[in-house]
Amino acid sequence: MKIVVLDGYTLNPGDLSWDGIEKFGELTVYDRVSYDEKDEDIIAKKVGDAEIAFTNKTPVTRRAMEKMHNLRYIGVLATGYNIVDVAAAKEKGVVVTNIPTYGTDSVGQFAIALLLEMCHHVGAHSDSVIRGDWASNPDWCYWNYPLIELSGKTMGIIGYGRIGQTTGRIAQALGMKVIAVDTYKNPALESDTMKYVELDELFAKSDVIVLHCPLFESTKGIINKEN
Amino acid sequence: MKIVVLDGYTLNPGDLSWDGIEKFGELTVYDRVSYDEKDEDIIAKKVGDAEIAFTNKTPVTRRAMEKMHNLRYIGVLATGYNIVDVAAAKEKGVVVTNIPTYGTDSVGQFAIALLLEMCHHVGAHSDSVIRGDWASNPDWCYWNYPLIELSGKTMGIIGYGRIGQTTGRIAQALGMKVIAVDTYKNPALESDTMKYVELDELFAKSDVIVLHCPLFESTKGIINKEN
Repeated sequence: MKIVVLDGYTLNPGDLSWDGIEKFGELTVYDRVSYDEKDEDIIAKKVGDAEIAFTNKTPVTRRAMEKMHNLRYIGVLATGYNIVDVAAAKEKGVVVTNIPTYGTDSVGQFAIALLLEMCHHVGAHSDSVIRGDWASNPDWCYWNYPLIELSGKTMGIIGYGRIGQTTGRIAQALGMKVIAVDTYKNPALESDTMKYVELDELFAKSDVIVLHCPLFESTKGIINKEN
Repeated sequence: MKIVVLDGYTLNPGDLSWDGIEKFGELTVYDRVSYDEKDEDIIAKKVGDAEIAFTNKTPVTRRAMEKMHNLRYIGVLATGYNIVDVAAAKEKGVVVTNIPTYGTDSVGQFAIALLLEMCHHVGAHSDSVIRGDWASNPDWCYWNYPLIELSGKTMGIIGYGRIGQTTGRIAQALGMKVIAVDTYKNPALESDTMKYVELDELFAKSDVIVLHCPLFESTKGIINKEN
């Protein structure tokens, strides 16, 4: 069985091992091929007659898939699978999997890190202090940006799946109220500090808006001039 | 009644009002006087014959207090009151108050912001991306520092009062285990993800150590070469 990894470098720049996958067949790992849908011929050629293709962000379009004659399985080495034409895969009987949980904690943590950067600009303050701006300041306290306290503010989360819930949990621990939009509502998650709302209400009431939804046609451009 | 604010600028650089205090007597607000204990004569002179003195970070030593003949009350405009010789104040019948809760949420939030800066260097990544380092990178993902995931790691918190608990709550929401040292232990706070320990165990087991204790003789130099 032939196995091709189309863009292995993103997942494994050298600190991981492919041995676990190599056990199952003849493995070829490309660091990267192309992230451009238009390069579907090049992408199809790299997969060739392999049964198994792994992709992280390399697009696998319907046309590319038509040229992968032996393809039986596409493993997405990430959570978002918008890079694979899943309708075409279904028609052809090609199984597609993604990894929905590998980054739950780290994505939630990173979303909060981005927010706290806007609230505190820690790196910029550190640079300023190293330049001597605090030492030359007559006051005991020093800051050069307004600081934002999150407690009591409202975070609107669009997409309240695993990652959205992780970000929401941290936000609530920071004293924020969370309002969330999701197609699937789990009443067990609601509390004094977490409520599901409709999108209009989320836009009206949120101090901070976080997007934790996949890129679907229905979510494309969800933040726009009208809203 | 005469009221003196020794270092008003730190609390109120111009965006707040002193009217609430002015109602009670003849108010003098100094932006700053001195943050040096050795300037006790200068500090005492500014208080003069006032009954009420407010300080944020201006030290009020025993010797300074001896020259404040009418002093009846010292209001610390902050949480930490190590700048006031409270033993001397007690002997003289001078009431001292601090404000234990004004910054609970914001200090906890800021402690986590400092930690996330070390984990993600968001500002530095932003600068790097603006310089074009991502655009000129062949891969879809880009970072130039190793990123640190906090989930599963252990945070040791020295001083588990209101602020320590706030930081601890956020850390647990980030998926961390919390171990804490405090003289006063509240068993109701303990859970699968939060335990009180002794200082030695905290030093041995923590991936991250956070100090949320006041500066007492007993806490001075608590982090040292031997530990």
